[in-house]
Amino acid sequence: MNSNNILSTRIRFARNLESTPFPAKLTSEKKKELLLKVKDTAKQLFPDLDYIDAMQLTTSQAGSLMEERLISPEFANNREGAGLLLSKDKSTAIMLNEEDHLRIQTFEKGYALDKAFKRAVETDEALDEKLSFAFNENLGYLTHCPTNLGTGMRASVLVHLPALSGSGVINKTISLIGQYGFTVRGLYGEGTRSEGSLYQISNQTSIGLTEDEILERLEEVLEKIQENETYLREKLSATPEIQDKIFRAYGILLNARIISSKEAVALLSKVRYGAEAGLLNLDLANLDSLLIKIQPYNLNEEDPKQRDIKRAQIIRTSLC
Amino acid sequence: MNSNNILSTRIRFARNLESTPFPAKLTSEKKKELLLKVKDTAKQLFPDLDYIDAMQLTTSQAGSLMEERLISPEFANNREGAGLLLSKDKSTAIMLNEEDHLRIQTFEKGYALDKAFKRAVETDEALDEKLSFAFNENLGYLTHCPTNLGTGMRASVLVHLPALSGSGVINKTISLIGQYGFTVRGLYGEGTRSEGSLYQISNQTSIGLTEDEILERLEEVLEKIQENETYLREKLSATPEIQDKIFRAYGILLNARIISSKEAVALLSKVRYGAEAGLLNLDLANLDSLLIKIQPYNLNEEDPKQRDIKRAQIIRTSLC
Repeated sequence: MNSNNILSTRIRFARNLESTPFPAKLTSEKKKELLLKVKDTAKQLFPDLDYIDAMQLTTSQAGSLMEERLISPEFANNREGAGLLLSKDKSTAIMLNEEDHLRIQTFEKGYALDKAFKRAVETDEALDEKLSFAFNENLGYLTHCPTNLGTGMRASVLVHLPALSGSGVINKTISLIGQYGFTVRGLYGEGTRSEGSLYQISNQTSIGLTEDEILERLEEVLEKIQENETYLREKLSATPEIQDKIFRAYGILLNARIISSKEAVALLSKVRYGAEAGLLNLDLANLDSLLIKIQPYNLNEEDPKQRDIKRAQIIRTSLC
Repeated sequence: MNSNNILSTRIRFARNLESTPFPAKLTSEKKKELLLKVKDTAKQLFPDLDYIDAMQLTTSQAGSLMEERLISPEFANNREGAGLLLSKDKSTAIMLNEEDHLRIQTFEKGYALDKAFKRAVETDEALDEKLSFAFNENLGYLTHCPTNLGTGMRASVLVHLPALSGSGVINKTISLIGQYGFTVRGLYGEGTRSEGSLYQISNQTSIGLTEDEILERLEEVLEKIQENETYLREKLSATPEIQDKIFRAYGILLNARIISSKEAVALLSKVRYGAEAGLLNLDLANLDSLLIKIQPYNLNEEDPKQRDIKRAQIIRTSLC
């Protein structure tokens, strides 16, 4: 399977401690105790992890972590009694006291389900041994939201689907995927719009199947999607109309002096399409890191106009 | 006066032969006789002139000459019994049997009223000596249209006014110029829209003033316009918004694979603005010749889609 249009892979386990109410039912005091306990255990097991007190984060810092997809929008917006354990290379991020006590997340660039899963399992097992996660023979791992019962796992890949998206076929794809128990969301998770033809494909529920079965099915669903995307691209990529769109996007990004986040993402999507199709000789990883750098909080500039100017400048420098 | 936004200068004399009806009143036979007579005389006096039989021109060839502004749209559309005398460097073009027997036109790049006028006078005087132009003590040169009586001269300059045009001030300017007996038209003369902020400024009537007075007044009017344009530019050019528009236009022209004539002219206008303001290091003469090359007939390609592709290609090559 061609995977150069897959930006990243993520595995997430929802875990809660035995005999402890879910975060929503914990007092501030109890939340703090839990943070301390998990933090100490985790840092002993994985010295590479840094601890970040969510309440010490500014809105801008939290927004920045959200844009990097290391924390959820819910975590960013409700930081009271929450914490984050983050590895130096940002490939592991454990949210504490979000909806569940722990949300163990592992990230990989590109398409790497096995690798991300392996690391998530290692992290999970080591923590489980010390912390004892709530588990029921029939329901599996116990979680705040019933959709996370069972494995507590969400496996997701971030895919770039400009052809499906541009032709409108994506809507049919989304409803089809739903029938397989998978879901398609925008860049920043549930309820967010898909910007720049970027879609997160992930399992909808985690009960009734083993982890391996979920991964296998995700792989199957993904293969189908990729087949359709590839088929459409073969018809489209050679047309002057599509090439025109791609090269114009590139020309604008290389020259604009003011650019909004929304326009930049839309144009970067076209440029990535060009790079994936071999029309533009650009480093995909560089484009993906640019996609994060140009997000509002990552730009770290309060004045909206200056932010649009700074964004244009960063894009020019990065693409030159 | 800064004149790097003046693309070209033109002097035109309307002339008719004594004791001969105006072209509208001539039979085909008589028109042919007149063509022969003028052609032979002109070629003897100015061997550099080539004669083009207007009836032998294809629609595309006529359109091409019109886009180069060597013939009028009226001449292009009504070629029966008409002819053209054209110098090798295209700096002199004499339309025969258009509205008048002769329309002597001289062209110069940039702002060069005196130079163009001098050459027009030399051509006119030499022809007059052999052909005897119709002249009346009170009315001056006799012409088909009363607005051309008197000197029969129209002096015009093609000016690029993006700041006046973009800010909407141009409308006030146009009505003000009218009061001085001058007129502002689009790129291709009477009734044509002004594309790409390009305006022809010329005298409205030619009676009641000497040639020198007309040229002097045109110079005055032009100076006023240039003052206003410069004033507005000084306020605008440094803003990131204008720079953004200029550089984006440049980026699109350098990268587009399909482009319409209208969009290309609009973008070239922005790029010329950038070059005039020193933001882009581009040769103005090259931009101006590109402006002609990308016109539909000059592209010499019948299929509209292929024409838009060819246009984009020529622009990329020319700007690289």
